[in-house]
Amino acid sequence: MMGEHSSKAYDTELEGIRSKVLLMGGMVETMFLDAMTCFRIGNLERAERVIGEDANVNQLEVQLDDQCSHLIVKRQPTANDLRTVMATLKVITDLERIGDEAAKIARIAKALHARGAVTLNHYEMVRTIATATSDLLHDALDAFARSDEKAALELIAQDAVIDHEYRSIMRNLITFMMEDPRTISAALDTMWVAKAIERIGDHAKNIAEYVIYVVEGKDIRHTHGATQEVSK
Amino acid sequence: MMGEHSSKAYDTELEGIRSKVLLMGGMVETMFLDAMTCFRIGNLERAERVIGEDANVNQLEVQLDDQCSHLIVKRQPTANDLRTVMATLKVITDLERIGDEAAKIARIAKALHARGAVTLNHYEMVRTIATATSDLLHDALDAFARSDEKAALELIAQDAVIDHEYRSIMRNLITFMMEDPRTISAALDTMWVAKAIERIGDHAKNIAEYVIYVVEGKDIRHTHGATQEVSK
Repeated sequence: MMGEHSSKAYDTELEGIRSKVLLMGGMVETMFLDAMTCFRIGNLERAERVIGEDANVNQLEVQLDDQCSHLIVKRQPTANDLRTVMATLKVITDLERIGDEAAKIARIAKALHARGAVTLNHYEMVRTIATATSDLLHDALDAFARSDEKAALELIAQDAVIDHEYRSIMRNLITFMMEDPRTISAALDTMWVAKAIERIGDHAKNIAEYVIYVVEGKDIRHTHGATQEVSK
Repeated sequence: MMGEHSSKAYDTELEGIRSKVLLMGGMVETMFLDAMTCFRIGNLERAERVIGEDANVNQLEVQLDDQCSHLIVKRQPTANDLRTVMATLKVITDLERIGDEAAKIARIAKALHARGAVTLNHYEMVRTIATATSDLLHDALDAFARSDEKAALELIAQDAVIDHEYRSIMRNLITFMMEDPRTISAALDTMWVAKAIERIGDHAKNIAEYVIYVVEGKDIRHTHGATQEVSK
């Protein structure tokens, strides 16, 4: 990721930004895992912590955007280096959105458990997609950390699996609701959780795409028409 | 928006980028209006056109990102000018997402009408939020075009109205589903449409925030805690 460029100071600054992005990545990863635990077993205190952490993630986004701007103005990067900075800016946006989605899951879990709804079955319905998405996010951050475009390319296909699973969950939930209207409210909550997970998968896929963009200089966004049509 | 900066060529290039952003804004605005018409009266051909237009919007995003990068490398903007470019990059991302949401609405409308579901009542449920959101988007693009931070500031409050309306639609739809399970499927489609509209409102609000960021040099993202908690 560190092509030929102007100065040692530049390297140091860019490395500082990268470390902070990875810190932000670790934060949203933990938020997502904790939010899913809340959805599974109900833990109001932990749900509150996830919701509170979102503010810290948002602060990091603003800080990092700022650091990237300063880097550009001070170091006047070459086209190659600038690509890294641009991709970093995009990754930051995706991480911030993942934080939002994790906080949403925590809020839904909190509301569900506050009104004493049993959610164990509903957790079971999203368990597979949650695990697949958490793996995808972890691996995408890892590919970003190691600038591993080969790993990144493999990850992009994973998102299609998540989208497929998402559609199947939706169909099942609709069937449940129709068969027993008393489940409507809890089924809807599960739908919003599934939707949030599916979006986290999309953002993780975006991160993998930016790794490829940086390493290969190819913008492969919007070249996977089929996977764009999934979520409604 | 055009502070003091280096060259005439820079002005010309930046103006070119701005025009293209406004073109992209006009495209997604039309997509949204057309998608809502499809949801209201059913027009498969128009729905297809909206869905197809999304690819053009995506292409514009990639092109504009590229033009912004070139501008930075070639012109090495001052901190002030760079702020404009950075905000433009963010606006582009929001416009692309608005295109995605409009295409989603068109796909839902298409599916609804293809299976002959009556949607007039459901359109009525989202009519108010759709009009408010379409106005907000139009006005945000207008504020961006005129670099009018006063107008932008007023718009940000509008999004809270949309979020309030969204919550009320959700409550009504849940009531309908519980009272008459035969409406579940159509009610869910209406929910996804309302959700897409609410997101378009969020993106329009983001655009207004970037206008303020450029003009005043203040980053006011994430300072409206209350409005962040709305959508789940």
